Amino acid sequence: MRVGFLQYNVAFGEPEANRQRVSDLIGDAQFDLLVLPELCFSGYYMPSREATFRLAESFETGKSFEFVKGISKRHDGAVVFGFPELSRDKVYNSAALVLPDGKCHLYRKTHLFNLEKHWFDPGDSGFSIHEFRGTRIGLMICFDWRFPESARTLMLKGADIICHPSNLVLPSCQDAMVTRCLENGVFAITCNRWGADRQDEEEIRFTGRSQITSSRGEVLARAGVEEDAIVIVEIEPLRARDKSVNALNDMVSDRKEEFYFK
Amino acid sequence: MRVGFLQYNVAFGEPEANRQRVSDLIGDAQFDLLVLPELCFSGYYMPSREATFRLAESFETGKSFEFVKGISKRHDGAVVFGFPELSRDKVYNSAALVLPDGKCHLYRKTHLFNLEKHWFDPGDSGFSIHEFRGTRIGLMICFDWRFPESARTLMLKGADIICHPSNLVLPSCQDAMVTRCLENGVFAITCNRWGADRQDEEEIRFTGRSQITSSRGEVLARAGVEEDAIVIVEIEPLRARDKSVNALNDMVSDRKEEFYFK
Repeated sequence: MRVGFLQYNVAFGEPEANRQRVSDLIGDAQFDLLVLPELCFSGYYMPSREATFRLAESFETGKSFEFVKGISKRHDGAVVFGFPELSRDKVYNSAALVLPDGKCHLYRKTHLFNLEKHWFDPGDSGFSIHEFRGTRIGLMICFDWRFPESARTLMLKGADIICHPSNLVLPSCQDAMVTRCLENGVFAITCNRWGADRQDEEEIRFTGRSQITSSRGEVLARAGVEEDAIVIVEIEPLRARDKSVNALNDMVSDRKEEFYFK
Repeated sequence: MRVGFLQYNVAFGEPEANRQRVSDLIGDAQFDLLVLPELCFSGYYMPSREATFRLAESFETGKSFEFVKGISKRHDGAVVFGFPELSRDKVYNSAALVLPDGKCHLYRKTHLFNLEKHWFDPGDSGFSIHEFRGTRIGLMICFDWRFPESARTLMLKGADIICHPSNLVLPSCQDAMVTRCLENGVFAITCNRWGADRQDEEEIRFTGRSQITSSRGEVLARAGVEEDAIVIVEIEPLRARDKSVNALNDMVSDRKEEFYFK
């Protein structure tokens, strides 16, 4: 299975230009699964909750969906991307998994980071798994990595690959994803953006280094700190079904729930 | 608070010699809390369950306790060490926290690694916290690190410092402990041994690199792969009570239990 990420520098508030940029960077790449960053067409650093509403769009029917469905169909591969989701009087930091047949699956960010708590409503979708080409795909967004329960829950629900659209500003996530993959025996594709969003005097800078990590905790690919990069690697996602550590240890059956959290 | 580890090369089946070695290495070191390795006087690689019984001793009253209580009293500091624990017809891979007043607290390893499943009974103590000089100390042993629930449970029970006696053979634990400390906002002292245990043709080699990690995921000290080392650092353990990530995020109150594990 050919899986990858597309890391780029998102221009704030210019969705049309960002979509064009993505189109150019993808070119004629071949993939089964491609992950784009969190809030990858809108930009990240919202001036206000009102601005978030203005940039938000509806799941499945928004302009970005039209665009991503086109890519997914044309390249015959699934695409994961982050977007500000408008749903009645709510706005979520969401990600979607878009399949080549046009089907879409939604995830709303569980753990909002910092000012996102002012811009967005708390995600209420929970974590779920979606099957594509015999592989089980789970979604989490950026800061969800910091809570081990996110990836653990996805693993316990059967995820082979965790798609992880991000706008990372802290430097620790990439190394932590090695631990996440090792402890759960899952693959992960962390797609970060690079560059900065600005507001008046303030600047928020993103740390690039998008990463593909194997179910045994090997870093299969890592992008630079400041570069556009489309990286696609071949993996055997079903290796994630093997949860053995050795002949006598298994990551799932060795869990001792009776001693956890109490 | 002065906390540290004592990394050394344990001689299999020679508890008397190992205790002497520890005595020599400690010298006149000053500490509030010192962590020794897992199974640090008996050695690790048991030829059989029967051999484990022969090397095992009782909690609080065994010869190693007499020795460790002496150190703890003389140095006026707490000591954590691992030992094969005999309890009626059971034998556990255990660790004890020994306080200068002679009080002892017990932990039985929750997640047995590989052949330990043949040598030991599964630990039934669960994770607990013990207060010493205003600091809350939790214990886990070696392979417990691989299950994020271990450190998470200790944190949720209030641990400031996780004492982590180990006999590590895999190379990933030390980096993972950075993630464990970061995600839980706790200090950790991982005390590994170095050298090898042998049985007939087989050899099992330990990876040294004992490590002290701060509640913000900084590596405060790390020993070499093959060296005796007593390392003591000054920390402010109450920094672990601050679970904030920034003004709006908190590692505990931001947990969304309603979406975990289901």
